[in-house]
Amino acid sequence: MGDTMETKNILIKNATILNPKSAEKDNIESFKGDLLIENDKIAEISKKNEELINSKGVEKIIDGKNKILMPGLINTHTHISMNLLRGLADDMALDEWLNNHIWPTEAGLNGEYCYDGALLAITEMIKSGTTTFNDMYFFMEDVAKAVNESGIRGCLSYGMIDFGDEEKRENEFKENIKLIKNCNDTAEGRIKTFFGPHATFTASKELLERVRYEANKYNVGIHIHMNETKKEIEDVKEATGKLPFEYLEDIGFLNSDVLAAHGVWLSKEEIEIIKKRDVKISHNPCSNMKLASGIAPVQELLSKNVCVGLGTDSVASNNNLDMFEEMKFASLLQKVNNMNPESLNSNQTIKMATINGANALNLEKEVGSIEIGKKADLILIDNKSVNLNPMSEKISSNLVYAANGSNVNTTICNGKILMEDKKLITLNESKIIEKANKSIKELKEIREESK
Amino acid sequence: MGDTMETKNILIKNATILNPKSAEKDNIESFKGDLLIENDKIAEISKKNEELINSKGVEKIIDGKNKILMPGLINTHTHISMNLLRGLADDMALDEWLNNHIWPTEAGLNGEYCYDGALLAITEMIKSGTTTFNDMYFFMEDVAKAVNESGIRGCLSYGMIDFGDEEKRENEFKENIKLIKNCNDTAEGRIKTFFGPHATFTASKELLERVRYEANKYNVGIHIHMNETKKEIEDVKEATGKLPFEYLEDIGFLNSDVLAAHGVWLSKEEIEIIKKRDVKISHNPCSNMKLASGIAPVQELLSKNVCVGLGTDSVASNNNLDMFEEMKFASLLQKVNNMNPESLNSNQTIKMATINGANALNLEKEVGSIEIGKKADLILIDNKSVNLNPMSEKISSNLVYAANGSNVNTTICNGKILMEDKKLITLNESKIIEKANKSIKELKEIREESK
Ligand SMILES: [Zn+2]
Ligand SMILES: [Zn+2]
Repeated sequence: MGDTMETKNILIKNATILNPKSAEKDNIESFKGDLLIENDKIAEISKKNEELINSKGVEKIIDGKNKILMPGLINTHTHISMNLLRGLADDMALDEWLNNHIWPTEAGLNGEYCYDGALLAITEMIKSGTTTFNDMYFFMEDVAKAVNESGIRGCLSYGMIDFGDEEKRENEFKENIKLIKNCNDTAEGRIKTFFGPHATFTASKELLERVRYEANKYNVGIHIHMNETKKEIEDVKEATGKLPFEYLEDIGFLNSDVLAAHGVWLSKEEIEIIKKRDVKISHNPCSNMKLASGIAPVQELLSKNVCVGLGTDSVASNNNLDMFEEMKFASLLQKVNNMNPESLNSNQTIKMATINGANALNLEKEVGSIEIGKKADLILIDNKSVNLNPMSEKISSNLVYAANGSNVNTTICNGKILMEDKKLITLNESKIIEKANKSIKELKEIREESK
Repeated sequence: MGDTMETKNILIKNATILNPKSAEKDNIESFKGDLLIENDKIAEISKKNEELINSKGVEKIIDGKNKILMPGLINTHTHISMNLLRGLADDMALDEWLNNHIWPTEAGLNGEYCYDGALLAITEMIKSGTTTFNDMYFFMEDVAKAVNESGIRGCLSYGMIDFGDEEKRENEFKENIKLIKNCNDTAEGRIKTFFGPHATFTASKELLERVRYEANKYNVGIHIHMNETKKEIEDVKEATGKLPFEYLEDIGFLNSDVLAAHGVWLSKEEIEIIKKRDVKISHNPCSNMKLASGIAPVQELLSKNVCVGLGTDSVASNNNLDMFEEMKFASLLQKVNNMNPESLNSNQTIKMATINGANALNLEKEVGSIEIGKKADLILIDNKSVNLNPMSEKISSNLVYAANGSNVNTTICNGKILMEDKKLITLNESKIIEKANKSIKELKEIREESK
């Protein structure tokens, strides 16, 4: 499908380039330079005082002066259609929140509503510098449609829940496999599909075992919620006699293709299992704080070389998708929890939101850093914003501790400009916002009628 | 001086008005309506379906449709000239940070540099919806100059430190009293002055006792750092045999005119003293997290009816002045620390950043809520921003959990428009940013030369 997309060779000149690489533990390369995009890929990178990039054949030049050029941010855990539910209910116990607010409203969802919510979320993500997100929800082919149209990159899984019911289980596999067959590697390769077993307390052993089998067969990854709340740990222990990761290890579920969202409550033994199986963790500090779930041992995981990416979870428990804000929460929460200001420094935090996220989603050969041959998923940050001045010598400091998503000036995904100078190219923001407000109004009416 | 200011009668029409009042504990009034500003004050408020405000004599009409109108935010603890030091050093132990980075750079400060930093900070505050700030630092008459020119409201104190040295103590009083005499109630009443004894471990008993005497004499408040770190508690206990608030109680220092910044480590007995003396607390979650100081017992203080306002501290330990972000940090940190999602709900958090802040600064008759006769310190938030949609029925939810400072559209202080439709009126942003970058460059050169 690549030849049907409008492609351009784009030259970004004189930018301050920030490049988190996988191998360098705490360091981030930064230099002034130019970058050439050919079609969907990064074709050339030139540092100042090196030979300049030949601008022949370049169809578009972006002035990178007073701008930071960095990889697009990677949100490793969210449920974007839930953007419709922003502000629906807050400040209450989990049971009341789910039983009396979230679930009754979700009951009215259909593909169109999920599409509306997805477009609202993608608009927010593009505007705040996210170019890849990892999603688990329902009506995922409608989410795929929004991804396709908007130009963003998405990893999509269907949230499988069987509570031990065999018929329901069959249906869940049918849904997730249909998603994989219809959508994997579509939209010029911007869509990858995953299996999405919801969690160890909502999916049966049979479901989890078959997910492992089917994931191997279809060669796709697995996205699952793990060890989010204390209660979940107790419930799984009561049901299986084991801690959640021990349980999954015993049934042969764990492998390097598993992305586990949360990992708040982890025993020493479970951390060893995670490390041994190279399971990836998505850390969601805002959601874990807002729902009062707890504080994940991120610094400890990173020090053991576990791959930890960053996620926002849905806006129902956040309540936005701003990965810059999420970075600040991640770093500051580790510092105060460990009573150590050196915890999760700004370079490590930037890496969590970029190259670690790529690793976590098995996309490390495609995105997450600025390297020749990788996909051109890039953002430009406006250095002239008042909250980013004076400009720190250590760029990551301003980005993690002072910036927010509104400082993003330009967003490029798969070589295509999705936002330039804060103007969206592929999406009609006001129409999307209007439609989303109409949809949640209808969903609330449906909820009231079914009472 | 009021007649020298450009004044206007301004009518704001069809806004969604959010009005935190002091008496209502968890509730916030909200309604659609119009608001009339006459000179520096709120003159009329009209709910829809009530008699409309007569627009005769109105010189300016602001369309409040799709906008939230609320009191300007009140930052109860900061050091704004330190905006020059943003990103200077992060992610390190307090001793190294202070001894090797902050103090050696501050050593080169003069009035002009402090003015430059203050203007940078005020630009950031106006853009992100703060209309009142409470500051403690040096060269405060230069900060007063920036307050006067910019149109913002500021409470200014000189940071007094004597370490027991009598000569130094005399000088500190001379400085702070000069500030009071020259600046109190100037700039159309926008500037109030305070005494600023730095902390119980940097100011001697003699200094603190005299501050109480002089504060009574000059009828101004007191702004002091209290109980920020565990080490401070231990040091004060070693030096005085008492916990910091017990020590101040014993020497007769405490009264309702004292604003204590931080209050992270508080014993039950100290909380009783705070309550008894009606001491005000400024909570600074980002700074306390970033410096790994600890987590203040905010929910407990509020439940005992202690007045707790919100502050950012300086950008050196934050690293921005965004009070919307600070609200989210405050609420989420209480929730996870108390393991209770009901902790510090969005209404309580809005009140901390508005009416509580006004109370904390003894400005409750002037600002912090929308009431006839109060000063017109107001902000308009753009409801059409993608991160604030869908619009929640509970407005405070979107403001605390989803918004950031960039959602502020218009800022009015003392009846004067300081920013309209995101365009600054009183300040030249690009010039201020350029000057600030030049100043920190010079300060770093001075630091290197003096090594
Ligand atoms: Zn989730
Ligand atoms: Zn301070």
